[in-house]
Amino acid sequence: MTFWRFSAAEDLRGDWFFPTEVRFGAGRISELPLILEHLGIRRPLIVTDRGLAATPIPNRVTEIAASASIPILWPGADQNPTGQQVTEGVAAFHLHEADGVIALGGGSGLDCGKSVALLAGCGGDLWRFAYPRSLEHQHERTTVPIIAIPTTAGTGAEVEASGIITDPLKPVKAGIVNASMLPRVVIADPELTLSLPPNLTAWTGMDALSHNLEALLVRQFHPMADAIGAEGIRICHAFLPRAVANGGDITARSYMMAAAIMGATSFVKGLGAMHALSHAIGALVGAQHGLTNAVLMPHVLRFNRPAVEKPISELARFLELDASFDAYLAELMELSRRVGIPARITEIGVRRQDFERLATMALPDFNAGCNPRPLDQPALVSILEAAS
Amino acid sequence: MTFWRFSAAEDLRGDWFFPTEVRFGAGRISELPLILEHLGIRRPLIVTDRGLAATPIPNRVTEIAASASIPILWPGADQNPTGQQVTEGVAAFHLHEADGVIALGGGSGLDCGKSVALLAGCGGDLWRFAYPRSLEHQHERTTVPIIAIPTTAGTGAEVEASGIITDPLKPVKAGIVNASMLPRVVIADPELTLSLPPNLTAWTGMDALSHNLEALLVRQFHPMADAIGAEGIRICHAFLPRAVANGGDITARSYMMAAAIMGATSFVKGLGAMHALSHAIGALVGAQHGLTNAVLMPHVLRFNRPAVEKPISELARFLELDASFDAYLAELMELSRRVGIPARITEIGVRRQDFERLATMALPDFNAGCNPRPLDQPALVSILEAAS
Repeated sequence: MTFWRFSAAEDLRGDWFFPTEVRFGAGRISELPLILEHLGIRRPLIVTDRGLAATPIPNRVTEIAASASIPILWPGADQNPTGQQVTEGVAAFHLHEADGVIALGGGSGLDCGKSVALLAGCGGDLWRFAYPRSLEHQHERTTVPIIAIPTTAGTGAEVEASGIITDPLKPVKAGIVNASMLPRVVIADPELTLSLPPNLTAWTGMDALSHNLEALLVRQFHPMADAIGAEGIRICHAFLPRAVANGGDITARSYMMAAAIMGATSFVKGLGAMHALSHAIGALVGAQHGLTNAVLMPHVLRFNRPAVEKPISELARFLELDASFDAYLAELMELSRRVGIPARITEIGVRRQDFERLATMALPDFNAGCNPRPLDQPALVSILEAAS
Repeated sequence: MTFWRFSAAEDLRGDWFFPTEVRFGAGRISELPLILEHLGIRRPLIVTDRGLAATPIPNRVTEIAASASIPILWPGADQNPTGQQVTEGVAAFHLHEADGVIALGGGSGLDCGKSVALLAGCGGDLWRFAYPRSLEHQHERTTVPIIAIPTTAGTGAEVEASGIITDPLKPVKAGIVNASMLPRVVIADPELTLSLPPNLTAWTGMDALSHNLEALLVRQFHPMADAIGAEGIRICHAFLPRAVANGGDITARSYMMAAAIMGATSFVKGLGAMHALSHAIGALVGAQHGLTNAVLMPHVLRFNRPAVEKPISELARFLELDASFDAYLAELMELSRRVGIPARITEIGVRRQDFERLATMALPDFNAGCNPRPLDQPALVSILEAAS
């Protein structure tokens, strides 16, 4: 739905007020001081991950924040942040006498930052907010305001009221869920993604696609989410190859950053087997989340085919392909090939002897219950076998 | 984008969490007692308009609310509610020692109810919240929780943080704007619209179309709003004639109720000349708002043609028409004819000698500044002349 065709960076900007306040556009990181003042944050803790800490971005953001506040940088999150790291972040928050959190990064920095803000405000044990125990604690609220600044175009965690935190003892990637984790303001500045290397651009971009696609295939009447998801899918197919081929393409970077927000907005419907399995694989072997989703994607689609033949055919028509399941699957395989996604999960560290265990871990994941075709343990094993 | 094709009422339901919590589906008015308990409302003031008060709906809602609270019904809003009526509603709120508002109705009851909740919480003079003065008072917040229950499928006021209130002395229909006017929970129960007569079904449905259409034509990068708006337009063309022809068609009523929510969600982008003129006409001659928008619609589109030829052509393609401006205009004229919209504004009480004055009143309206083709007073007069 390209009703308005924008390509200039000055056109690719806007102020969006759902699902939360989003200040979208190249260069808008410069508005951070104004936002800190508006929210009354004087001593922000900037939470980010170790990967991003090796780039100039965190120091640049800290400098910008320093013109309106006394910020401190806490770059302590792993690629799959743990409960222990959240606790350490809360300690840093209190040591700094902080009054707000700037969550900065890809999913790791954003999810860790939002969880730190939750626990800094509510105190006590993090795991009471892990789904499904979170349902008993949904009326607890943190008053610590969160500003989210994504540096990848994939997770969409910047517009979400939850975060994925790993408990390495079980192991499990738990969904930490609380309405007060929704950032108050998001700065979505695609310039912050320009230096992301091609492999991470591809993996995070495929994560955005997986969100839009799995959400669309959750069988629930939500015409707003479905309209957003379909357009998000169209954007990923049109712009992800451009962003991977030329990281400096600000038009492609802008559209992909929008697609990431669209994925997370539409997946209020839920997700499915890709994410259930991906969370299990992440917890067990620590693989990058978007990459795992990308490798699983065609195999989960094939498994779901009996339940989604019709909507996938309609999606293919919307993308101006032949209106068939096979036409969309071929388009997806071609996209995967172009952006360099491996064909098999065994290429990303998953071992055959772990399939049974991974299926057992994936089954209780919230998203398994949203999959359009019902899942059980043997079904999940069969998807892993098809993907190996 | 009919990825999922639903028609059974039990499928046409969902829980939506943007732009606010929406409980969508036939029969869900029965969840009102639970929602009152969840929000801690013990003494709700039920605000509605005089038109609806002549139907069994307000008493039914009051009875349902009474199982979990001590409600009182205040049916004091006109079709175009006034500032005086908001003040009277606030007096009723305090007399009842109320602790929450149930805003019930079409745009009149909903906008009056939301404004009563704002003023009951903040005190003082209503007009400080009228745009543009509202910008100075945006950090004032009411803590009075609002439950919105629409009884028409048009306004979308149930998912909006503003309301239109008339000041008959000037006269002007002012936009009362404050973030805390956003209802906490919406019950969108299409059964409440089954008894709406064909003319009001048509007028309110065309209002929903006007929101989706004018928002889509605001030239701003917002792919989520545009995806929602385009799908909302598709739904109006597909289902409004069915809802007008057979008011008991719950499938058509459900889709139209969704389209109304979609219109108000997408018009965070702004609206345009239809609404600027429609507010002026409403203030001066008291015409029904949706009807006014419907009569103006093709004339505003023709005026805007130089600026919107391309997006309207793309919209036509999306609707599976010839990809041209003329194809969409013809489809729109056919829809208007089928649902009984008059061709000329002189048929709805607007007099030629008022054109100059109406144009002068419309120009400062917030929406005039969002129109895709720049507006001035002569341009607005020319639209009124073309529509007469």
